[in-house]
Amino acid sequence: MHIVGERINTSRKAIAPAVEGRDAEYIQKVARDQVGAGADRIDVNAGTLVDGEPDALAWLVQTVQDAVDAPLCLDSPNPAALAKALPLHKGKAMINSISAEKERYRRIVPLVKEYGSAVVGLCMDDEGLPDTADRRVEIAHRLISDLADDGIPADDIYIDPLVRPISTSSDAALVVLETLQRVHERHPAVHFICGLSNVSFGLPARRLLNQAFLVLAMGAGLDGAILDPQDAGLMSLLRAAEALLNRDSFGLHYIQAFRDGKLAVTP
Amino acid sequence: MHIVGERINTSRKAIAPAVEGRDAEYIQKVARDQVGAGADRIDVNAGTLVDGEPDALAWLVQTVQDAVDAPLCLDSPNPAALAKALPLHKGKAMINSISAEKERYRRIVPLVKEYGSAVVGLCMDDEGLPDTADRRVEIAHRLISDLADDGIPADDIYIDPLVRPISTSSDAALVVLETLQRVHERHPAVHFICGLSNVSFGLPARRLLNQAFLVLAMGAGLDGAILDPQDAGLMSLLRAAEALLNRDSFGLHYIQAFRDGKLAVTP
Repeated sequence: MHIVGERINTSRKAIAPAVEGRDAEYIQKVARDQVGAGADRIDVNAGTLVDGEPDALAWLVQTVQDAVDAPLCLDSPNPAALAKALPLHKGKAMINSISAEKERYRRIVPLVKEYGSAVVGLCMDDEGLPDTADRRVEIAHRLISDLADDGIPADDIYIDPLVRPISTSSDAALVVLETLQRVHERHPAVHFICGLSNVSFGLPARRLLNQAFLVLAMGAGLDGAILDPQDAGLMSLLRAAEALLNRDSFGLHYIQAFRDGKLAVTP
Repeated sequence: MHIVGERINTSRKAIAPAVEGRDAEYIQKVARDQVGAGADRIDVNAGTLVDGEPDALAWLVQTVQDAVDAPLCLDSPNPAALAKALPLHKGKAMINSISAEKERYRRIVPLVKEYGSAVVGLCMDDEGLPDTADRRVEIAHRLISDLADDGIPADDIYIDPLVRPISTSSDAALVVLETLQRVHERHPAVHFICGLSNVSFGLPARRLLNQAFLVLAMGAGLDGAILDPQDAGLMSLLRAAEALLNRDSFGLHYIQAFRDGKLAVTP
């Protein structure tokens, strides 16, 4: 499972002032804590700063990579911000995200190619985010085919099926699970990633729904997630699901996590 | 989800003396607590008593049904015990279990017919429990077809794919998930049921693995489980998975469980 730590995002209350004030020490601690908790990659998002986004994203890349060896997920649809941040990034960056929206695709894919980045492709196009699995699968196939034509290797592609709240459409999670399963079957070399928390919007005990959704999505083929690696309950279920899905032979990583005291046994 | 409460089993330390000593008060409390926690059906198992099993099972049926309205799961492969207990049972009993073993099938299916019971069919035959999903699916299809020939309605059939520990064969959970998915696709009217705890045998933090396995299996089509309904963490994830899989429209039962204080939000 490719775990992308989500905490460095200026939409979070503690992060915005730290980024605006260029508080390197604080940001580096947030990065280190996430890597320590199991993040394979650190998401950086300065989208709320609008005009300040390019400078802030560039600063975040340098600041975070001064503190941790992990590669980053540059979480921006803004080509100007990406163009400023990518040259500073060490290792294989992930660009989050493109979609099948023509303009967005046309402006960002050249950056993916130039820097050999991984890229997140959202299952939406110029008509928006479709309700049905059929249409999302169709968009995913089109994205994968276009990216292949542009020379992006399958191993660098992460499809995000996009999760809507089950409180507003009760088949929202099922649509994602079916999309994952069908795209995975046809493109076994392509990766998948998504955020979890949208699914539980408007319902109580949201962390419980996010946890169950992560496990269901892993069963359907999800092999990456943008999440809070310091959520011990979530990470413990993730490790358990890896062992059950034979992505962790004989549970060796699971056992190691237990020995390290990292498994939160739920009540 | 059809939830079968597993606690009344003489292999459990507190239950054996209570059954041997015919302690109705204690057994009735264990039954009531399980129904209160969400069990739809109560399992009764007196298998360890050997020669005493028929009398004990008959006593359990009367004792438990004097206390709760729920139907029971008669957990015995012993035709003599079943024959003694079934006439005393009110409502639709569940017989757990038959298999594709010829002798076992031949001796128990007449009881299923005579009493109009539901029946659990294990995915094993006279050659034992197969390692592969292919062979388990084949056995399930054969069982379903034989039961149909014997006049048992699909709605009364619960296929148990049988779970082995992932610690001894690392694809053990995957085999179950694939079996569920394939049999469910071909026989959408048939039900599924299984126990959870075998999967985690030999590994630490077993409840975590059992929880993740339940969610994965529900995603693959499981619609019944034999479990401890008083395990709040497990039941909470079960309710969350039901909401996500659109088996609980707009999460209404989930919300009710939250309001009743029954959701254990994990750490």
